[in-house]
Amino acid sequence: MNIPAIYHRAESNYCFALDGKTVVLRIRFSKEDVPDRVSVLYNNKYDIARHQYRQQLHHLCDDSWYSYYSTVLHLKDSRLAYVFEICHDNKVQYFCEYGITEQYDFNVAYLNSFQYAYINANDITQNVPWLNNAVFYQVFPDRFYKASQKDEGYINSRWGQLPDPKSFYGGDLDGITSKLDYIKSLNVNALYLTPVFCGISNHKYDIYDYYNVDPMFGGNQALKRLVEGCHKRGIRVVLDAVFNHISDRSAQFQDVLKRGKQSPYFNWFVIEGDKINEQRDNYCQFASCPYMPKLDTSVREVQQYFIDVATYWIKKYDIDGWRLDVSDEVSHDFWRMMRKAVRKVKSDAVLIGENWHNSESYLNGDQFDSIMNYAFTKQMIDYFVHEKIDEVQLALQLNGLLMRYTDTTNNMMFNLLDCHDTDRFYSLVKRDKYKYLCALAMSVFMPGSCNIYYGDEIMTEGGYDPDNRRTFDWNRLNDGEVKQFVQQLTSLLALKQQPALQRGDVKISGEKGVFVIKRSCDVQTILLTVSREKGVYIEEGHGNGVAEEKSNKYFLIQGRLK
Amino acid sequence: MNIPAIYHRAESNYCFALDGKTVVLRIRFSKEDVPDRVSVLYNNKYDIARHQYRQQLHHLCDDSWYSYYSTVLHLKDSRLAYVFEICHDNKVQYFCEYGITEQYDFNVAYLNSFQYAYINANDITQNVPWLNNAVFYQVFPDRFYKASQKDEGYINSRWGQLPDPKSFYGGDLDGITSKLDYIKSLNVNALYLTPVFCGISNHKYDIYDYYNVDPMFGGNQALKRLVEGCHKRGIRVVLDAVFNHISDRSAQFQDVLKRGKQSPYFNWFVIEGDKINEQRDNYCQFASCPYMPKLDTSVREVQQYFIDVATYWIKKYDIDGWRLDVSDEVSHDFWRMMRKAVRKVKSDAVLIGENWHNSESYLNGDQFDSIMNYAFTKQMIDYFVHEKIDEVQLALQLNGLLMRYTDTTNNMMFNLLDCHDTDRFYSLVKRDKYKYLCALAMSVFMPGSCNIYYGDEIMTEGGYDPDNRRTFDWNRLNDGEVKQFVQQLTSLLALKQQPALQRGDVKISGEKGVFVIKRSCDVQTILLTVSREKGVYIEEGHGNGVAEEKSNKYFLIQGRLK
Repeated sequence: MNIPAIYHRAESNYCFALDGKTVVLRIRFSKEDVPDRVSVLYNNKYDIARHQYRQQLHHLCDDSWYSYYSTVLHLKDSRLAYVFEICHDNKVQYFCEYGITEQYDFNVAYLNSFQYAYINANDITQNVPWLNNAVFYQVFPDRFYKASQKDEGYINSRWGQLPDPKSFYGGDLDGITSKLDYIKSLNVNALYLTPVFCGISNHKYDIYDYYNVDPMFGGNQALKRLVEGCHKRGIRVVLDAVFNHISDRSAQFQDVLKRGKQSPYFNWFVIEGDKINEQRDNYCQFASCPYMPKLDTSVREVQQYFIDVATYWIKKYDIDGWRLDVSDEVSHDFWRMMRKAVRKVKSDAVLIGENWHNSESYLNGDQFDSIMNYAFTKQMIDYFVHEKIDEVQLALQLNGLLMRYTDTTNNMMFNLLDCHDTDRFYSLVKRDKYKYLCALAMSVFMPGSCNIYYGDEIMTEGGYDPDNRRTFDWNRLNDGEVKQFVQQLTSLLALKQQPALQRGDVKISGEKGVFVIKRSCDVQTILLTVSREKGVYIEEGHGNGVAEEKSNKYFLIQGRLK
Repeated sequence: MNIPAIYHRAESNYCFALDGKTVVLRIRFSKEDVPDRVSVLYNNKYDIARHQYRQQLHHLCDDSWYSYYSTVLHLKDSRLAYVFEICHDNKVQYFCEYGITEQYDFNVAYLNSFQYAYINANDITQNVPWLNNAVFYQVFPDRFYKASQKDEGYINSRWGQLPDPKSFYGGDLDGITSKLDYIKSLNVNALYLTPVFCGISNHKYDIYDYYNVDPMFGGNQALKRLVEGCHKRGIRVVLDAVFNHISDRSAQFQDVLKRGKQSPYFNWFVIEGDKINEQRDNYCQFASCPYMPKLDTSVREVQQYFIDVATYWIKKYDIDGWRLDVSDEVSHDFWRMMRKAVRKVKSDAVLIGENWHNSESYLNGDQFDSIMNYAFTKQMIDYFVHEKIDEVQLALQLNGLLMRYTDTTNNMMFNLLDCHDTDRFYSLVKRDKYKYLCALAMSVFMPGSCNIYYGDEIMTEGGYDPDNRRTFDWNRLNDGEVKQFVQQLTSLLALKQQPALQRGDVKISGEKGVFVIKRSCDVQTILLTVSREKGVYIEEGHGNGVAEEKSNKYFLIQGRLK
């Protein structure tokens, strides 16, 4: 055995509870050196010395270096102690907190077994069911549709013209509201809007007033109309929480500019010295943008201010959650407080972090429900765009990502191909519709939700910011081939007729030229096959078995679309 | 390279901040296959594509299977992105979030480098300086000294008689207060008392009134006198927080017994059915003790009740912290709230968990400061008592324990040889004074605090509960050989003349027959050598070098004491 490669950690993505009596265990081995059999010996922590139950683990998946084994324990008691028994080459070894040994004495299990000492209800990562089959539609409000009567003096660009960093087109919230039937036709059940509060820029990530929707977008009443319109159609609304930084035009920063250390807001920022200097380079900023001074989210007053903001819009405008901008730079302590406050006012309001990296430390059930799955995006780019990896490697990579988090978290993941911060995926694949559709299908079949960035459904093109924020081309709605495919795909996820796509198990596999995602639950198996020769197949079987035989083909795209 | 054995995780015990600009990195390799050189390439996360700083890691220590490498990064900015460069057999490889590769493209670091996105002040594990050199004296109040005038009707045992589970001897808090000069003579600077609040049993882990010190122990005023007496002498006071369960005689449980589901306290407990049944076996208990019903610490009212208790005794009686009974079965969510509440009323009040197992999930700076280091106790037993491991293995095991947690946490660890829940160590080693002193010295030299369980200093004997709770034998105070050694040892830790023992680096090593703990800081090196041939040596050198040459011997115990 490659013993140093074996890994397990209690109370982590390797050992997590689904409820007070159900625990999922995972253990990792070097792929080159897997055991003949691996079992878990377990019991109530007070009884394990006397008696151990035994349960065999099954092979779950492989990533590039590791094989993962797993099992689900159904406990009689919420206090779990356990030890792994690993059989390999006719040799039995035991794996406990102190590592691998040839003997294991259960009389000292109280000192060295693995344990999940007690499963407390409020430490369990909670599933938010609507995230299991959410089809998000993401809108950049200035660029989707312009409807309202308002002061149009700020508009400096003609609809359809390519954007530059300072372009304003006049899109607004009433514009979105007026297009909700169109959005709903895509089976969308959740809308995510980039920031809508008063900001200087077109993107509004530089907010100066967190209590008012920008007049450019129609003000607070327009948001009210939009939320009502959405809810009437079964669409939830998620807004963008920009709590990492604030506009330099905000009252808080302006006061600091004026009064330096005398300002009560001085400690809201991270400033070297007693005041902001003339070069404006002695304070911490988002990236290196002087107009977006970074907030110190460790400071109690800052925390309270933004918790008030976060709960205000839920209480008063009934929004359904927040996407958290630059969430990885904000204090964990703050996110824990925010989660509690938000959940208290709406029990299924969600928090979706903008985390580009491995986010274990944010996804233990005490902070976010979900993150934007850029790690998935990266694999899609490596496979479809750069062709750096083949189907086999893609499957290994995606399995590796699933093993980062618990199943509960995976089932709430926000899967995306693109957004306002990336190149349009359709442009990345150089307008290869076939690749594009394959990737879209994969984003739907991965556990969790999927995201349609406004215009993805009509093959909108665009490079990096600001080109990824073009105006929606309403003239192209009839170019319906891709849109139809999107509709078919999203119907599978959103309409709840495919239970396997919601919280079903996932098996990802690849061989030369063929890539498969299989989702299965007790009553259904549904299979996505992406094949360069045969096209995108989606098949369904009944019961938790292989789908091939009794397949019930939904649709099939053969070869390349032109 | 044994690539599958390589391990690192951002924002964990492998990557932790000491302050906003200082980060410690660790990385783990299979011991059989260490690299020729390992470096970290790093920068501000926004600048790493453009430029990377490079710093080489040094070999930190080995445990049974792994070699750990480490370095301390001094950053210009609090936003760290990094990748490891591993050189082995003239081959260079890179290690990022996605594993090991032969090439690394820093243009995609924003997607796949390791990162500590921003070091927020209130997410850093805070050092509590007094825990770095605390010498605890742990007292089981019924058995230490009896001083007060009170109703003695409950006393059923004569001082000196061996205890049974129901013995009461009459020891009390004024008894402890009257012996504070004796306690102080042991260089003790922190007192830890097993529970003092109203309980039925002699151990009082079955509390029915959390707002009153048991009259057997002298009531609240006796605690006031004790705390004042301690503080006058520079001794801090830590009480036992029994928040996992409550007495069945408590008003809360009694109300549930009476009214079943109608009781407002029904949801404080974990009960099957609508009421407690006649067999008293349908509710969750501590271990299997019907008289200690388990509390549901996920319930908001329970949480608030015990947070009020925890802060009350700090605010009103000025205690300095809590030892947390059965802390691993209590909700993380509750501990996070309790930490905040406690720290708010006293900024250096400590929380020390009774966690027998690996406690990573409690020791990230948001819950406990420290735990009772039973993992250390276990190693002491394996080496000195069972002689299952030799000096080499002991060193490997102890290094493994240090690698479980951050340096900050290690420096606050509560190291103990024994307590009210274990056999007396002196009995375990079969009254072998030499082994006993070696182990005591090691408990002082390990990072963090040490614990003297009342009577350890006079070689009190005792097996498992209740024998480990004998009355203190005040007639043996003149049997001073061991006591003197204890005093010498504790003076090193408590008197702050040995800065290296406080937050100094630690190097643990062993070879056949000789075991060494070396502690060093910029101004001092202090070395403990435990050798079967030569005795216990403690030597000091100046500066962060090897102590041997310019050694300044403090004391030396040669051979076996008789």
